[in-house]
Amino acid sequence: MTTRPAETSRQTLDRLWARGCALLGTPTAIMGGAMSWVSERHLVAAISNAGGFGVLACGSMGPDLLAAEIDATQALTDKPFGVNLITLHPELDALMDVCKQARVGHVVLAGGLPSGPAIRRLKDGGARVLCFAPATALARKLIKSGVDGLIIEGTEAGGHIGPVSTSVLAQEILPEVAEQVPVFVAGGIGRGEAIVSYLEMGAAGVQLGTHFVCATESIAHANFKAAFIKANARDAMPTVQVDPRFPVIPVRALRNKGTELFMQTQRDVIARFQAGEMDQKTAQLEIEHFWAGALRRAVIDGDVENGSLMAGQSVGLVREEQPTRVIIDTLIAQAEAALTQRAGGAPHPVPIADPVP
Amino acid sequence: MTTRPAETSRQTLDRLWARGCALLGTPTAIMGGAMSWVSERHLVAAISNAGGFGVLACGSMGPDLLAAEIDATQALTDKPFGVNLITLHPELDALMDVCKQARVGHVVLAGGLPSGPAIRRLKDGGARVLCFAPATALARKLIKSGVDGLIIEGTEAGGHIGPVSTSVLAQEILPEVAEQVPVFVAGGIGRGEAIVSYLEMGAAGVQLGTHFVCATESIAHANFKAAFIKANARDAMPTVQVDPRFPVIPVRALRNKGTELFMQTQRDVIARFQAGEMDQKTAQLEIEHFWAGALRRAVIDGDVENGSLMAGQSVGLVREEQPTRVIIDTLIAQAEAALTQRAGGAPHPVPIADPVP
Repeated sequence: MTTRPAETSRQTLDRLWARGCALLGTPTAIMGGAMSWVSERHLVAAISNAGGFGVLACGSMGPDLLAAEIDATQALTDKPFGVNLITLHPELDALMDVCKQARVGHVVLAGGLPSGPAIRRLKDGGARVLCFAPATALARKLIKSGVDGLIIEGTEAGGHIGPVSTSVLAQEILPEVAEQVPVFVAGGIGRGEAIVSYLEMGAAGVQLGTHFVCATESIAHANFKAAFIKANARDAMPTVQVDPRFPVIPVRALRNKGTELFMQTQRDVIARFQAGEMDQKTAQLEIEHFWAGALRRAVIDGDVENGSLMAGQSVGLVREEQPTRVIIDTLIAQAEAALTQRAGGAPHPVPIADPVP
Repeated sequence: MTTRPAETSRQTLDRLWARGCALLGTPTAIMGGAMSWVSERHLVAAISNAGGFGVLACGSMGPDLLAAEIDATQALTDKPFGVNLITLHPELDALMDVCKQARVGHVVLAGGLPSGPAIRRLKDGGARVLCFAPATALARKLIKSGVDGLIIEGTEAGGHIGPVSTSVLAQEILPEVAEQVPVFVAGGIGRGEAIVSYLEMGAAGVQLGTHFVCATESIAHANFKAAFIKANARDAMPTVQVDPRFPVIPVRALRNKGTELFMQTQRDVIARFQAGEMDQKTAQLEIEHFWAGALRRAVIDGDVENGSLMAGQSVGLVREEQPTRVIIDTLIAQAEAALTQRAGGAPHPVPIADPVP
C-alpha cells in the first residue's frame, strides 16, 4: 500500500473535490441549494463571490422575472452561478431559453425527472446540466440522458424532500455512479467534517441550503433568521399527511402554528369530504392550497407563526448571522482540520472550536 | 503537517476504533443493535463469535427469561456480549441483578434517560454501561452520570426512532463529547465506507441492526427475511401520527397492510372519540394497543402482511441471507478498501464490488 503523498490539508481537499470544482468552474465545490425567495441575486452572488457556487431559485418566476434576476445577479458577481428550474413549470421551454440567452453556465433541473429532450436542449444551448437523483436507477437513467452532474439530497434537507437519509443515499448511489459523473451530496450538511466524509465516499462536492439562510447577504426577514438561530435539529420536521387518500407533498420546515393548523385543516377537510360536503378533488385542492404563499409570508414578511419556515436539520448548527464568506471559510477550515487529524494519525478528532461563541 | 505513517488499512481501522474495541473487549467495534425477538441467543452469539459485539434484546422479558437467555447465549459463545435493558421496564432492578449474577460485562440502557442511581448500580455490579444520547445536552448529562460509552442513533434506524438523522447527530454530538467517552454511531449504516466516515468524524465504533436481520444465524422467519431482501430504503417508513392529541411513538418499519390499517384505525378511533363514543384515555389505549404482538407476529410467525416489519433504511443494502461472519468480514473489507483509496490519493473511490451478485 502506498502512503498519502505529503500534501497540505487544503491540497488534499482540493484533490478530493477537483472534479466538482472543474464542473462548476469554482475554487470550492460547495453549491448553494436553491431556496425560493431566499436564493435571489444577493445571496447567490455572495456565495459565488466567496468561492462557492450560488444557484438562483427560479421557483414560480416567469421568463421576464427570471431574465431580470439573472441580469441583476450578473451585475453583482462575475463568478459562475447556476439557475434552478422546476421541470414541471408550465413555461419550462421559455425559461430554458432565458438561461441560454443570458449565457447561464449551469442549470439545475429539479422537481421531477427531467426529460432527455429538456437536458439535450439545455446542453445544446451551452449550459451544463445537473439533476437530482433520488435513487440509483434514476441516477443511471439521468447519466444516459447526458447530465453533467448529479445531486443526491437526503430527507434531512429543508423544503421538498424525499424519504431516504443523506448517508443512506450516499452509501447506495455513490459506489454505483460516482465514477461516471460528479455527484454532489446534499441534506443535513453543516460542518466541514461532513463535507470531507462525503468527498471521501466518492462525492465530487456538496450542496448546502439551510446553512446559508442566515448569511448577512441573505434577504430573509430578521424574524426568519431569528427562528433559524433559535431552532434545534428536531424542530425541522416534515409535514404530516393524515390520510392516504389525500396526498401531501412532504416539506421539511420548523414547527410552528402553521404546521399545527395544517394538520387541523386536513382533518377538517377530510371530515367534510366524508360527510359528503365536498368532493375528493375539491378537498385535495383545499389541502394543497393551505400553504399557498406561506413561504413568502415567512421569508419576506417575517410571519414566523403562520408562514412556512422551510429548514433542514442542519438548522441546529446555525447559531448566528455571518457573512457568506465567513460561513464558507469556516466550513473549509473545519474540513482542513479534519484532514489534518486523519493524516496525522491522531487517535480521534479534537473538537473543533465552533465559529460562534 | 505530518504524513500518515505507513500502516496497512487494517492497522488504520484498528487505530480508528481502538477505543471502541477496548471498551467492548472485541477485535472490531461493530455492535449489534438490540432488536426484540431477533437479537436472541443465536444471532447475538454469532455476532460475538464473528468478532463483533452482540447485544441481547431483553424487550419484554422478565428476570427468569432473561437469565435463561443469557445462560443460553454464554453456552454458544465465550466472547463478550451485552444486554439491552429498557429503563422503563417495571422490573428493571431485578433485571439488572440478573445481569450482575450472570456476570454480563456490558449493559445497554435504552428507552428513556436512565437515572444516575441505575447507572451506578450497574457499574457497582461490575458492568460497563452504554446509553443512547439523542442530543448533546443529554450526552453531557449521561457522561456526568458515569456512563462508559454512548450510542447516537439517527432517525434512519429501524424500530423506535428519534427525529434527527445520523449524520446530523454525528456533526452535532461527536465534536462535543467524543473526546470524553467512546461514542458509537447507529442508524442507516450498511457499508464499510460509512463506518470509516463516522470513525474519522470521531466515533469509537458503530452499531448495526437491520444489516444483521438476514444473517443465516438469525431466527427471523423466512418471510421476514424475504421482505428485507426485497425492500428498498424508501419502504422503511416511520409510523404516522394523525392527530397531535393522540401521540404515536414513531417506529420505522416496512410499509405493509398493517401500517395502512394503523392509520385507518387512528382515524376511526379519533372519529369515535369526537362523536363522544369513547373518552380520550380509552381512545389513546386503543391506538397504542394496535401494534401489540405485531413484531412477534412478523419476526416469529412470518405474518409480513399484518405484522410489524421494523427495519432501518439500510434495508435497501440487504440483498441476501449470509452468515454473520461474512456480513462482518464484508463490512471490514469495504472499510479497508476505503482507507486504502484515501491513503493512496486516488481522485475518487473505485466502486467496491458488492458482496452479492
